[in-house]
Amino acid sequence: MFPKATLPATALAVILGAQSVAAQDLRADALEYFSALPSTIPAVRENPITPQKIDLGKALFFDPRMSASGVFSCNSCHNLATGGDDNLETSIGHGWQKGPRNAPTVLNAVFNAAQFWDGRAPDLAAQAKGPVQAGVEMANTPDNVVATLTSMPQYVAWFTDSFPDEAEPVSFDNFAKAIEAYEATLLTPAPFDAWLNGNDDAMTGTELAGLQTFMDAGCVACHNGINVGGHDYYPFGLIEKPGAEVLPEGDKGRFAVTETVDDEYVFRAAPLRNIAVTAPYFHSGVVWDLKTAVEIMATSQLGAELSDEEVDNVVAFLGALTGEMPEVVYPVLPAETAGTPRPSGEVIVE
Amino acid sequence: MFPKATLPATALAVILGAQSVAAQDLRADALEYFSALPSTIPAVRENPITPQKIDLGKALFFDPRMSASGVFSCNSCHNLATGGDDNLETSIGHGWQKGPRNAPTVLNAVFNAAQFWDGRAPDLAAQAKGPVQAGVEMANTPDNVVATLTSMPQYVAWFTDSFPDEAEPVSFDNFAKAIEAYEATLLTPAPFDAWLNGNDDAMTGTELAGLQTFMDAGCVACHNGINVGGHDYYPFGLIEKPGAEVLPEGDKGRFAVTETVDDEYVFRAAPLRNIAVTAPYFHSGVVWDLKTAVEIMATSQLGAELSDEEVDNVVAFLGALTGEMPEVVYPVLPAETAGTPRPSGEVIVE
Repeated sequence: MFPKATLPATALAVILGAQSVAAQDLRADALEYFSALPSTIPAVRENPITPQKIDLGKALFFDPRMSASGVFSCNSCHNLATGGDDNLETSIGHGWQKGPRNAPTVLNAVFNAAQFWDGRAPDLAAQAKGPVQAGVEMANTPDNVVATLTSMPQYVAWFTDSFPDEAEPVSFDNFAKAIEAYEATLLTPAPFDAWLNGNDDAMTGTELAGLQTFMDAGCVACHNGINVGGHDYYPFGLIEKPGAEVLPEGDKGRFAVTETVDDEYVFRAAPLRNIAVTAPYFHSGVVWDLKTAVEIMATSQLGAELSDEEVDNVVAFLGALTGEMPEVVYPVLPAETAGTPRPSGEVIVE
Repeated sequence: MFPKATLPATALAVILGAQSVAAQDLRADALEYFSALPSTIPAVRENPITPQKIDLGKALFFDPRMSASGVFSCNSCHNLATGGDDNLETSIGHGWQKGPRNAPTVLNAVFNAAQFWDGRAPDLAAQAKGPVQAGVEMANTPDNVVATLTSMPQYVAWFTDSFPDEAEPVSFDNFAKAIEAYEATLLTPAPFDAWLNGNDDAMTGTELAGLQTFMDAGCVACHNGINVGGHDYYPFGLIEKPGAEVLPEGDKGRFAVTETVDDEYVFRAAPLRNIAVTAPYFHSGVVWDLKTAVEIMATSQLGAELSDEEVDNVVAFLGALTGEMPEVVYPVLPAETAGTPRPSGEVIVE
């Protein structure tokens, strides 16, 4: 599965400097595993994307009134200013409760095969409905979301423009679809994409050496595809279980979704785009240093002892996955009316 | 002090339709009390505003890592998507604690004579230092803010560019000055400004009738100047104290700043720009309806019984103070490094 011989970084740099056949070989090998981000917004299943829907979705994404308390928006935990996540171990939500797992980045998430660490949501629209209702996150209800939106004529007009053929355009389903449409625009082309597309100068020799190691050592077995991960499920601790701090016993991952013993401690392979700017790492969020995260992965998943230089190179390669953010103009949201449900920070213990 | 005779709204509308001398008179009267927003960013005392400082200030304004928990930024409570405030009675902060007073809008706040409901900060730079350190808000310390900023090379470069002549550009003072510089750009020109500037069509007859009532009834005694308020202090309940819900006994307003008995229940007159989109109202934040707020003001401050039509007209006039937001491009913030202090949601009870 990983037939390429390891090429020392220094030798690789020399070869690349000469724009040799080997450089072309590396790209050809990489293109067997990865693909570059597209230059256009991808189509999404059963949700035609229109400019109206994107604008509406952006407003919803940034609107804290989608939470019961009026404090949290989607952007609170998937902050577009900080790599599409919140840089916390696990998010803090309604009532100052802590979420169970580290918030993944929303950037390029449209290309994940499924959403959440355990893949329990098949797409971004299904995902968007989760945190809004989670008691420890936004603690809201679909009815209250719809009542809030319906109370503001500007939102009703935006929903009508976005779902023109529907009798009841303002619905929780359409709320989720609009957010999905907006999130589908959050693509961050990176130096790795430019290099995959043929620009030899887009990545440094060290970054390319890291790519070589990433492929040779076997990281690519789980972290491949357009998002360098995010497309399938694997046991965390395939070769050697990491410590309980990194892999808490109580969180059995995908087992909660499938109730299949084989899925105990199975998680979706993390998509690695923008990984360098989205610490801390793993579903537990306890590892802040990317180098440490790479070392844990090498030991637990591959049983490989990478040299310090190899780990550094892999970290450099991962840095080449940090992309350019699309320009986001901060929305101006509709004002509440007399009919808008009032925010409540009350914590209801069930 | 309010010599102008009340002109019935219908009569006024007829006269204005004719672009008569009376319309010019109304403008001349209004210009005795109000002035339009300037077309350029105002100068700020001891803080020369540069493009570099504005950009830095914007980053800081939106950066949740300025709070101890990593959850709250300035924008959390002064949200530029929702009128520059948070649409909560009082803000929810660190540890889910509630702040003591309603968060005022940051929009046009540079023109207030002083900041906070009790004017305890002389300017926006001094104001910016408050919530960052308040235990119930961002719960951070100046040292931790500086350590956080210093840990990110991009921030150090931005501070160096913004304060080029200083030996230690990254400081808590400069943090506050950069935020002040950014906030000075948050001006929202409104129909009222266009009308003051001579555009007869910028306001409707009803809005102008409301302006006339606003001046005749005496609202203008406290709510005048460029921000239609925000420049001086007055007792809340000058004529008749409102109920304890609206004016809680425990909050004696400016008395806490001056310790002068005359300042009991004295507050800075609220600046009224964008008031229609920044419910709820008063320092207590308990009144959600602008019409109710106007009625309370009429009774408590003026001892006036305004007719229902007059109140509606005043509300319409206040709507003409809703301005256009400057376009805000959401910032991309520097990524944490190994040296960045870790966020902590821990609540320290003193």
